[in-house]
Amino acid sequence: MTSKGLAIIAGVGPGTGASIARRFAKLYSVVLLSRSPSNFEPLVQEINSSGGKAIGISTDVSDANSVKSAFDEIEKQFPDSPLAASIFNAAGGFVRKPFLELTDEEYSTGLDSQARKAGFYFAQRSLPLLLKARESSPHPPTLIFTGATASIKGSAQFAAFASGKFALRALAQSLAREFGPQGIHVSHAIIDGIIDIPRTKQWVLPHEDAKLSPDSIADSYWYLHTQPRTTFAFELDLRPYIEKW
Amino acid sequence: MTSKGLAIIAGVGPGTGASIARRFAKLYSVVLLSRSPSNFEPLVQEINSSGGKAIGISTDVSDANSVKSAFDEIEKQFPDSPLAASIFNAAGGFVRKPFLELTDEEYSTGLDSQARKAGFYFAQRSLPLLLKARESSPHPPTLIFTGATASIKGSAQFAAFASGKFALRALAQSLAREFGPQGIHVSHAIIDGIIDIPRTKQWVLPHEDAKLSPDSIADSYWYLHTQPRTTFAFELDLRPYIEKW
Amino acid sequence: MTSKGLAIIAGVGPGTGASIARRFAKLYSVVLLSRSPSNFEPLVQEINSSGGKAIGISTDVSDANSVKSAFDEIEKQFPDSPLAASIFNAAGGFVRKPFLELTDEEYSTGLDSQARKAGFYFAQRSLPLLLKARESSPHPPTLIFTGATASIKGSAQFAAFASGKFALRALAQSLAREFGPQGIHVSHAIIDGIIDIPRTKQWVLPHEDAKLSPDSIADSYWYLHTQPRTTFAFELDLRPYIEKW
Amino acid sequence: MTSKGLAIIAGVGPGTGASIARRFAKLYSVVLLSRSPSNFEPLVQEINSSGGKAIGISTDVSDANSVKSAFDEIEKQFPDSPLAASIFNAAGGFVRKPFLELTDEEYSTGLDSQARKAGFYFAQRSLPLLLKARESSPHPPTLIFTGATASIKGSAQFAAFASGKFALRALAQSLAREFGPQGIHVSHAIIDGIIDIPRTKQWVLPHEDAKLSPDSIADSYWYLHTQPRTTFAFELDLRPYIEKW
Repeated sequence: MTSKGLAIIAGVGPGTGASIARRFAKLYSVVLLSRSPSNFEPLVQEINSSGGKAIGISTDVSDANSVKSAFDEIEKQFPDSPLAASIFNAAGGFVRKPFLELTDEEYSTGLDSQARKAGFYFAQRSLPLLLKARESSPHPPTLIFTGATASIKGSAQFAAFASGKFALRALAQSLAREFGPQGIHVSHAIIDGIIDIPRTKQWVLPHEDAKLSPDSIADSYWYLHTQPRTTFAFELDLRPYIEKW
Repeated sequence: MTSKGLAIIAGVGPGTGASIARRFAKLYSVVLLSRSPSNFEPLVQEINSSGGKAIGISTDVSDANSVKSAFDEIEKQFPDSPLAASIFNAAGGFVRKPFLELTDEEYSTGLDSQARKAGFYFAQRSLPLLLKARESSPHPPTLIFTGATASIKGSAQFAAFASGKFALRALAQSLAREFGPQGIHVSHAIIDGIIDIPRTKQWVLPHEDAKLSPDSIADSYWYLHTQPRTTFAFELDLRPYIEKW
Repeated sequence: MTSKGLAIIAGVGPGTGASIARRFAKLYSVVLLSRSPSNFEPLVQEINSSGGKAIGISTDVSDANSVKSAFDEIEKQFPDSPLAASIFNAAGGFVRKPFLELTDEEYSTGLDSQARKAGFYFAQRSLPLLLKARESSPHPPTLIFTGATASIKGSAQFAAFASGKFALRALAQSLAREFGPQGIHVSHAIIDGIIDIPRTKQWVLPHEDAKLSPDSIADSYWYLHTQPRTTFAFELDLRPYIEKW
Repeated sequence: MTSKGLAIIAGVGPGTGASIARRFAKLYSVVLLSRSPSNFEPLVQEINSSGGKAIGISTDVSDANSVKSAFDEIEKQFPDSPLAASIFNAAGGFVRKPFLELTDEEYSTGLDSQARKAGFYFAQRSLPLLLKARESSPHPPTLIFTGATASIKGSAQFAAFASGKFALRALAQSLAREFGPQGIHVSHAIIDGIIDIPRTKQWVLPHEDAKLSPDSIADSYWYLHTQPRTTFAFELDLRPYIEKW
């Protein structure tokens, strides 16, 4: 394969991030950002050994300097690759607790791990590269944010997570309205349900197919990415057929 | 091509409906419903002559008997084809007028052409066939409704159209919650912008690519249809990159 | 009391409608519309004997002629009273049933009893009188629609009711955007929970105060009505403290 | 007047906060929190000299220690007064700027001044007092958050403000769902338009009454506060009649 450009995925573990990386690696070189190298190393190897091109960069997306270093490294290693897609899939900030037991740090982490630091740093470093890629990217340069049920519903004991996810959606929507007319496709995916990843394998649910398939989420992100600019989707809600909503 | 099943498209003119028909005809036999045969005849010929299989049935989807006849005819002509997809794309009911000048008939038509008659009759006849197709359809049997900006926003002078489109979305959402757990994929697409069809060809807009591409809308419907039941999207908003929203 | 104007309430039974009538009767003459005189007769008597002024008119709000007769009668009886408030509180259309068992008539009634006939006729006859009352009404002339949970959520087995309530909300929102700038206050109240009325008296719930108080709903409508035009609320959601939402 | 309890207002300048304070001072002792004493001193004097009871505490609501000190002072000065209402009306975080020119500090301030610090600290200190006041407060203890158009819509160049306001709404909604069933009334008011305050006095608009009246906003907060627990409103949108929305 000759890479047609670059895709950066922030937040790569054994689940959705990995599936997104595999999907986008079919056309692009992929850069995987995660705090711990153990999160991306097997995947980097897998993609490279199956004809793709991947690198991992140990990054704390909630740290401005760490994000800066990562993007400096990306520009150094791929000076001529247009950034076709930048995917914000960072986890973190999830805590379920009575509000009065929530610590300042827990609530802050809910916001920092999503909009306030991670999402903001990632978007600010991605957008200049996406703008530069408008002529050369095979599809409109795309910035996708991963949301959750808590992106549109605040629930009891979910104040920290919902605040972070609401704020991330505000960021996504503001960016879609500012950069859409400039030719950048900004999207927000609401993942509503349990994802079928190693950590949830042992959760037995009363119906089969009751967990979201990470590969199908990745297919949805790919679909969003390949939309032409005449027909951009901003928001998509994904859930198992059996999910109550 | 060997047809893998059946797709019914209600509301086929020279625009979105035709693109949807062409897209679904790549895998399925397609049935085109429209009041006037002149709306589907060229398309039927085009699809049949390029290796697909299409028929058209002159149908008034706002008329219970006409819908009944159409479905009776479909079951007669395709006794063994699973209904893989049923697309409600019927137009009608659009009127922009000061509320106090709106006639009873105009307001009624806004609702009848969408939820009250057309959407209701189409869904009631489609769902039993979709349920029957669960084992044999190559993808989860799918029922898609075409919405508009007015599906989620009531505007001055748009009372008739918004009422019809809100009600159609209520129908779609109610059906998604009832039939999703039974394995039927019910979706609602919000088309937010001007579609690039013969009627709007002469509308010159200040930016290129400023109209929605009917083929891309069709690709989105196909994407919805091919989602596995682990990962159903209910709602999707589609608009040109340049659209204000 | 000297009446300062007129309030019309469509949909008056022993519950919310009666409370609204009592509340508005403190300042206005009230006209109660209901199909059956038994619904308004005791209330008319109660209001008149306690110093207020009330009349009832037997009206089928889903019937154009019946609504026309009612308004003709109102204008005849109160030729000089400005219409200060018009409240659409008509019930009807509620049915909970698997979608495939829903009859054409049941689904139609869901829409006719709300937006398609009743809401439309009531709004078309009220608005000219409200516009005429702008100078003389003590508060900005007001048109309020009663909504429900189903106004913003379509649920399994609720297709008929949700379609009607969604459409009524579309009507309310369209009218708010058209007539607000003309000085008419159009509002929509989402009643989310069980109302404490004679019919629900015997429903014993696990918490006290778990049902909506009709008098408090009426207070909310009054509050909406008395807002100055600098500060109009369009939408309000009302529910018991214990309600899950 | 004998004070029936306490109301705390965070964010008191010459506009909405002052009107809220005056309104709640008719029944309660009021505590005004603002960074600069010049913001509350004239108001404290005005309320005290007209028969009410008010104190001001110089507080930086984005600073945990400052909020702690303020509440310690409140409990010291009013040991026996039930906290009937706590109003979060803090401004800050508003910035309108192309996203790529937004500094880390500006974006953080958008969140810190609303949900992440100010809203969180204020809610965490208020709620235990509100819970304690359930028996003795004349109306259900109430926590109200002031929102804006940006609470539900992210717009170009508004990423910082929208992120903060979305997150604040998430916080409000999560708290409403957690503490509502415990008898605390949590509400969120969406202020959609220009408020008529000293700073906007010179803004001449094409229509009269085109700015929100702070006194009417205060009346709305009072109305929310006096709702019984059978009939709580969570959300209210307030705008001038002439506002486009």
